[in-house]
Amino acid sequence: MRIGILGGGQLARMLALAGTPLGMRFMFLAPEADACAASLGTHLQAPFTDQDAWATLATGADRVTCELEHVPLPTLQYFHQRGLLAPSDEAVAIAQERLHEKELLNRLELPTAQYAAVDSAADMASALAITGLPAILKTRRMGYDGKGQAMIREPGEALAAWHSLGEVPAILESVVPFERELSIIGVRGRDGVCRFWPLSENRHRNGILRLSLCRPGNPLQALAEKYCERLLVALDYVGVLALELFQCGDELFANEYAPRVHNSGHWTIEGAVTSQFENHLRAVAGLPLGCTEARGHSAMVNFIGNMPDSRQLLDIPGLHLHSYGKSAAPGRKLGHATLCGATAEQLAKNTERLIELADAAEGAPPHA
Amino acid sequence: MRIGILGGGQLARMLALAGTPLGMRFMFLAPEADACAASLGTHLQAPFTDQDAWATLATGADRVTCELEHVPLPTLQYFHQRGLLAPSDEAVAIAQERLHEKELLNRLELPTAQYAAVDSAADMASALAITGLPAILKTRRMGYDGKGQAMIREPGEALAAWHSLGEVPAILESVVPFERELSIIGVRGRDGVCRFWPLSENRHRNGILRLSLCRPGNPLQALAEKYCERLLVALDYVGVLALELFQCGDELFANEYAPRVHNSGHWTIEGAVTSQFENHLRAVAGLPLGCTEARGHSAMVNFIGNMPDSRQLLDIPGLHLHSYGKSAAPGRKLGHATLCGATAEQLAKNTERLIELADAAEGAPPHA
Repeated sequence: MRIGILGGGQLARMLALAGTPLGMRFMFLAPEADACAASLGTHLQAPFTDQDAWATLATGADRVTCELEHVPLPTLQYFHQRGLLAPSDEAVAIAQERLHEKELLNRLELPTAQYAAVDSAADMASALAITGLPAILKTRRMGYDGKGQAMIREPGEALAAWHSLGEVPAILESVVPFERELSIIGVRGRDGVCRFWPLSENRHRNGILRLSLCRPGNPLQALAEKYCERLLVALDYVGVLALELFQCGDELFANEYAPRVHNSGHWTIEGAVTSQFENHLRAVAGLPLGCTEARGHSAMVNFIGNMPDSRQLLDIPGLHLHSYGKSAAPGRKLGHATLCGATAEQLAKNTERLIELADAAEGAPPHA
Repeated sequence: MRIGILGGGQLARMLALAGTPLGMRFMFLAPEADACAASLGTHLQAPFTDQDAWATLATGADRVTCELEHVPLPTLQYFHQRGLLAPSDEAVAIAQERLHEKELLNRLELPTAQYAAVDSAADMASALAITGLPAILKTRRMGYDGKGQAMIREPGEALAAWHSLGEVPAILESVVPFERELSIIGVRGRDGVCRFWPLSENRHRNGILRLSLCRPGNPLQALAEKYCERLLVALDYVGVLALELFQCGDELFANEYAPRVHNSGHWTIEGAVTSQFENHLRAVAGLPLGCTEARGHSAMVNFIGNMPDSRQLLDIPGLHLHSYGKSAAPGRKLGHATLCGATAEQLAKNTERLIELADAAEGAPPHA
């Protein structure tokens, strides 16, 4: 089967690595000349709005999916109308717009932070009355990795926040005093079968994911699956979806969802029987889903801005290295590594060493 | 790092799939237009004897390795002389010639079948006196998957066997009355560190591997490792080497070695912490070797001549499919699947189902 992917970054690359053994071939529509997935298939280098490229992809692919949610709606609609796209244009479009997304989550009775739309400076006071303080102002569109966000701790900071985001349509959200950030990754097949991986515990720095842990047996697993399943069913979803959650005691608050494979699920490559990448493709292709059980405990660490030395990384026993083949740049996700073990204790020492190497590399100047 | 591979078949393909996450890029020198590794790198389509292609590969790769041992010696020497080749031309050349191979195994005091060189019909009688009957006559060069072999059960069959192989330089070997065929796969780094995967138990049909089982804890593991290490050290080997063994009680007889990743080690992709493919590349690149421990028990089944239906295969819980993207042809290896489990019992039922699907597909006519 020929799979078209909108986007050519590391998620597309890992999809292609997972799909090639299934006998799939890949075509990537991606504007960047140096798309890091390109070496694993055919690269259509064109803007997402290029209609000739749409036609080429529609001819060259039996199914089309996205590796990122910020694809223009007309592009998604083109492939949706031809019966090629999974997940649907609607599922992706809602995730592109934080207000629509929160409204959906609330309609499905998933607990969320308090929120209010902010379309002008004048809206700010009424919005703050709903959310209280501290609150976080976010652009409704094009936010990722903590970009397009401003924290408001005092009423006097509200206008500065509005200006700092460029006075674009925004959403104000109360800050959930969470103990832990979690994500549940689910997959739904064309036949409606849903499966879920064990919860990931996620630690961010500067809005970017640094570390995900999979520790199977979390008592909140069933609740998280219930929420994720509600979303998958409501969207008549096909493929992998990641739902980000805040844990407060034994409660879970839904933050946002990603209509695609997700960084917090990279540990599934070695840490689960079937990876998120393979199951996304199985779903998109209409094949039976694979088992999502964990193979023990896992820890995944991102490499941001600069790659640690491969030799030092591979000296860590049992380390699985994933370099994306991208050039170094501050804040850029360049790779990750995963460690797996029978118990969390078994992992702890090597995870510490791995984080040390990741941090040291990030502090160092990028390679010339 | 840029890796050049002599050959572009499924072993090259699985090497590229394992090496891409390490940040490696691949160039394949392979004469076939439809080399199944081609989509994962740059394909130099040329005969192995093409000197322009050698120069292109030497410029485009930092290290060169083989996915098959039947590469002409001048080609190997070209890359060896430039310090690019691993394993060495010598290690590959010996494996190309069964008589040299048996002589090496005997020099290293690895038990083998009785054997004698046969260069003419006149040599047959003295050779039979050494080996006894039954014996097997094999061409010294270019044999694989049971090709270039003739069984001799009665003295009267000897001349017919000689003629059937085309009267080329041959070796006569006594038939070892083995209980089980095993293989030990080892890897040696540039620093001389050796690691070994748990023994594979192999079942062949018509000379072609059908099934490999990894059942960790075989009491012959230490003996097999000792033999394999002797070979790795004697050859100053860099990379993965597979040593095929016959088990007779608690004795092991060395049959032959492959100076490359091996079909009986395909289970290591999911069934070991580090796969044979990744460790071969780590060794070739001078990187630290990964852990070779098994992750439970594994069973690998080859698909020969015709692929089973993907949907039926992927319906088997926990199955890992590897389709090589090759067109169907009788006797051709087109793919494999691996099952992993905590115990052999856990695997047995699904393995039976997998073998059933593989056999049914092979019996069916190839797809148009």
